[in-house]
Amino acid sequence: MESGQVSLREVPLPNRDSRFALVRMLRAGICNTDLELQRGYYNFSGIPGHEFVGEVLECASPELLGKRVVGEINLACGGCQFCATGLSRHCARRLVLGILNHPGAFAEFLALPESNLRLVPDEISDQTAVFVEPLAAACEILEQLHIPVGERVAVLGDGKLGLLTAQVLQVHGARVTLFGRHHSKLEIARSFGVETEAASVRPTSEFNIVVECTGSPEALPEAIGMVKPRGTVVMKSTVHVPIVIDMAPVIVNEISLVGSRCGRFEPALELLRSGQVSVSPLIVGDFPLSEAPTAFAAAATEGALKILIHNT
Amino acid sequence: MESGQVSLREVPLPNRDSRFALVRMLRAGICNTDLELQRGYYNFSGIPGHEFVGEVLECASPELLGKRVVGEINLACGGCQFCATGLSRHCARRLVLGILNHPGAFAEFLALPESNLRLVPDEISDQTAVFVEPLAAACEILEQLHIPVGERVAVLGDGKLGLLTAQVLQVHGARVTLFGRHHSKLEIARSFGVETEAASVRPTSEFNIVVECTGSPEALPEAIGMVKPRGTVVMKSTVHVPIVIDMAPVIVNEISLVGSRCGRFEPALELLRSGQVSVSPLIVGDFPLSEAPTAFAAAATEGALKILIHNT
Repeated sequence: MESGQVSLREVPLPNRDSRFALVRMLRAGICNTDLELQRGYYNFSGIPGHEFVGEVLECASPELLGKRVVGEINLACGGCQFCATGLSRHCARRLVLGILNHPGAFAEFLALPESNLRLVPDEISDQTAVFVEPLAAACEILEQLHIPVGERVAVLGDGKLGLLTAQVLQVHGARVTLFGRHHSKLEIARSFGVETEAASVRPTSEFNIVVECTGSPEALPEAIGMVKPRGTVVMKSTVHVPIVIDMAPVIVNEISLVGSRCGRFEPALELLRSGQVSVSPLIVGDFPLSEAPTAFAAAATEGALKILIHNT
Repeated sequence: MESGQVSLREVPLPNRDSRFALVRMLRAGICNTDLELQRGYYNFSGIPGHEFVGEVLECASPELLGKRVVGEINLACGGCQFCATGLSRHCARRLVLGILNHPGAFAEFLALPESNLRLVPDEISDQTAVFVEPLAAACEILEQLHIPVGERVAVLGDGKLGLLTAQVLQVHGARVTLFGRHHSKLEIARSFGVETEAASVRPTSEFNIVVECTGSPEALPEAIGMVKPRGTVVMKSTVHVPIVIDMAPVIVNEISLVGSRCGRFEPALELLRSGQVSVSPLIVGDFPLSEAPTAFAAAATEGALKILIHNT
């Protein structure tokens, strides 16, 4: 990917040192971040792709060889304060698979440190395993916030991240209302037991917790209006343009705005293994790697849910 | 005060029902919010003033009669969810002394519910007691955040609120660095044992906690740049213009932005009674009520610290 163009290239096998495993991609998913990279975010050029499941072809550890794995996307230094405290996702020297200076998963083969890999239980299909990374990002909210069972939570946005987040919080025991614009997606949310409302409905000061997953710069002020005094707005969708915001209500009402990004894979793997979270309704296309440009075009269609790419 | 003008008026004694005490103002302080009200914030007209110490002239409770008191500024409904859980400062139906639909303390007499009044211990002088309300706002940070003893904390802004906040956090046991623009004010901070830096110094990703007290719309992005991943920026100074902000680093670094406003009076009273916090270096003028317009002009001087008004 370069200058906004998605194209196919012959590339050599990934370079790797002894700490790295060589992984054959089985399936990968296109994330909104990939579309942002295509639009020029991070001045990206190279191989994108950070949601994947693969098979380990070469590695030092016998317990990984030949196994199906998913991979944590942050390649951390291993020596800093964050790496030492289990927060290598915040290592300042990190590379990021398919995003920052490390070739990604939209390729036949990729390389990742063995310590980034997690075995995929047999109960999880390839198509489902692709969702471990984005589902982990949804689970991250529960690592950052204490959400009491029975708490009413609003999730704004019925896209991929909104639907995963609503499910995760509902399974956790919160009473989730998803606010969205698309009837078909709200229908999916209801099939998970989540209450839904049209995005045009904006109750004032109604929730202690509002999770913003719309990807729109207008949504944060709306989320702030929906949260009670002393409540929390979780900022889940990265918006790559400066936003204009009146902070006076945030200060007067002592609201917390909490940024939230990647999460640990373990809770996501367990939610998928146990079947508590269902991702198949989110898949709307599955293209061979040779048709990656078409897959990207499909993912960029307004309202598209998850597009997968498989290695044939 | 009306249409940006501060003037003296003869007004009748405050109306009050039986739950209210009639209080003779002894001394009051001009806060930046009063200057904002003068500039048109909240379309304010009427008697401002919310930092005061007074003497109870009339009330139902014998234990208050004739005593020196300070007063919580939020007049709450007493019946809502917030009032029931000790957070009447967030009651949606509240009036606010000298700010929102309740005449303030820059007058010979004021009326407040008896439940808002707190007795002032003899160790606290009138001039010092005026600081209970703003000091309580600084103490509020400790009710919202767990700050470990020994934690390095940055306070941005060397105005009244910054100097009080830096002291409170230092007394709590944090290692505070105050960033400011005024040599004389940084000198005051150092007399409290607080480290200081010029405002032009902006270390990157250095603190787990940064408290923004500058009153400037530019300061929040600067504060975000100074905080470590997973850290917290406390937004203490209300800015009444929309700000333009890039939220991407807040989300990627999982930073929390926490609005903070008024606090309980009890911790502030104890800090002043025990002498752990010193406010006298912050007083730069003390005018009779008859010279209130001059007092307001002095408070509006660039870099002015606390201007008091006394009732003669």
